[in-house]
Amino acid sequence: MAVITKKISLESSGNCDIINITGSVSDSLLDAGIGHGIVTIFVPGATGAVTTIEFEPGLVKDLAEVFDKLIPSGHYHHDATWHDDNAHSHLRASMIGPSLTVPFRSKALTLGTWQQIVFIDFDTRPRRRELILQFIGE
Amino acid sequence: MAVITKKISLESSGNCDIINITGSVSDSLLDAGIGHGIVTIFVPGATGAVTTIEFEPGLVKDLAEVFDKLIPSGHYHHDATWHDDNAHSHLRASMIGPSLTVPFRSKALTLGTWQQIVFIDFDTRPRRRELILQFIGE
Amino acid sequence: MAVITKKISLESSGNCDIINITGSVSDSLLDAGIGHGIVTIFVPGATGAVTTIEFEPGLVKDLAEVFDKLIPSGHYHHDATWHDDNAHSHLRASMIGPSLTVPFRSKALTLGTWQQIVFIDFDTRPRRRELILQFIGE
Repeated sequence: MAVITKKISLESSGNCDIINITGSVSDSLLDAGIGHGIVTIFVPGATGAVTTIEFEPGLVKDLAEVFDKLIPSGHYHHDATWHDDNAHSHLRASMIGPSLTVPFRSKALTLGTWQQIVFIDFDTRPRRRELILQFIGE
Repeated sequence: MAVITKKISLESSGNCDIINITGSVSDSLLDAGIGHGIVTIFVPGATGAVTTIEFEPGLVKDLAEVFDKLIPSGHYHHDATWHDDNAHSHLRASMIGPSLTVPFRSKALTLGTWQQIVFIDFDTRPRRRELILQFIGE
Repeated sequence: MAVITKKISLESSGNCDIINITGSVSDSLLDAGIGHGIVTIFVPGATGAVTTIEFEPGLVKDLAEVFDKLIPSGHYHHDATWHDDNAHSHLRASMIGPSLTVPFRSKALTLGTWQQIVFIDFDTRPRRRELILQFIGE
């Protein structure tokens, strides 16, 4: 059994930018040199989140529009207190969550055929992000 | 320390069908032969999700109705592009997430008394599903 | 590799009480005596949840108000069936989820600078709660 830490660096444009990181996670898994176990993909930061989706342009647009409807940008206590503009980014990120754990067998993630792992940047400006991949297995 | 993979097969009717899988997860834990650790329950597929709830008919109906209100079926880019009808299924699944990690001690899940693990099938048709259970522990 | 179980006891006032547990999780990690791995923070109970947020009074108020809008208290099947008043607490908890997994390196959680781990008590009355921390690592 081993614990292996990898990192993914990426540039995001913010405003519900949805980035497919499946390839990077798979590559890191091969690199980690373990066959069976789990990987926890973690966003260090309070305005980003991670989940899975069928990554195609229609759904990517739909998901952004759903968030615009459910948790619109607007007048929040956070923005008023800190003269900030990203309270809705924080609230959306807390809703989806910063952590996803995915099993793997024989060095392959157990994803469905049309299922991709995505990082969502809810912040209101372009940012450079570093995600943590923690592999545990044998 | 060991990594043990188990699978749960089930038939779902779709349309926010909520299925109690607590018994199957507990049985698989006994079968796995390890005492202390965590199990990651994972849905390979982009229209299913896993969470916990007090599994009783009232809440099962309430949760379906909440989703009908927050993310109704309707006119989405995904459906228009692919002549599909399940964009809302995808969006709901991404919101709840495909993965749940639960600790266990002495071969027992650390669930609350009224808390059950459920698979939710948000797709729009009956499907046969296979869930992954990845046990890690000693 | 080792599995170490710790518990956090806390008193909550309910009604979307959001409690910063980052210090307790960090203290338990030092206590666990392992350097690299993951910790699963789990709520045994169907009306509590765990996620991360920038823990400051503005956002804490904003998050409670978002839930009052999206899943208000009101007329649900659960309440009608059981003469209860906390159906909305259950539905909110299922949405956020009872489990969060966070990596750690060199005995430090890989959180962002402004990111805290929080327990949210959605129930409608003050409660004493016990959370499970399951550490796995080496």
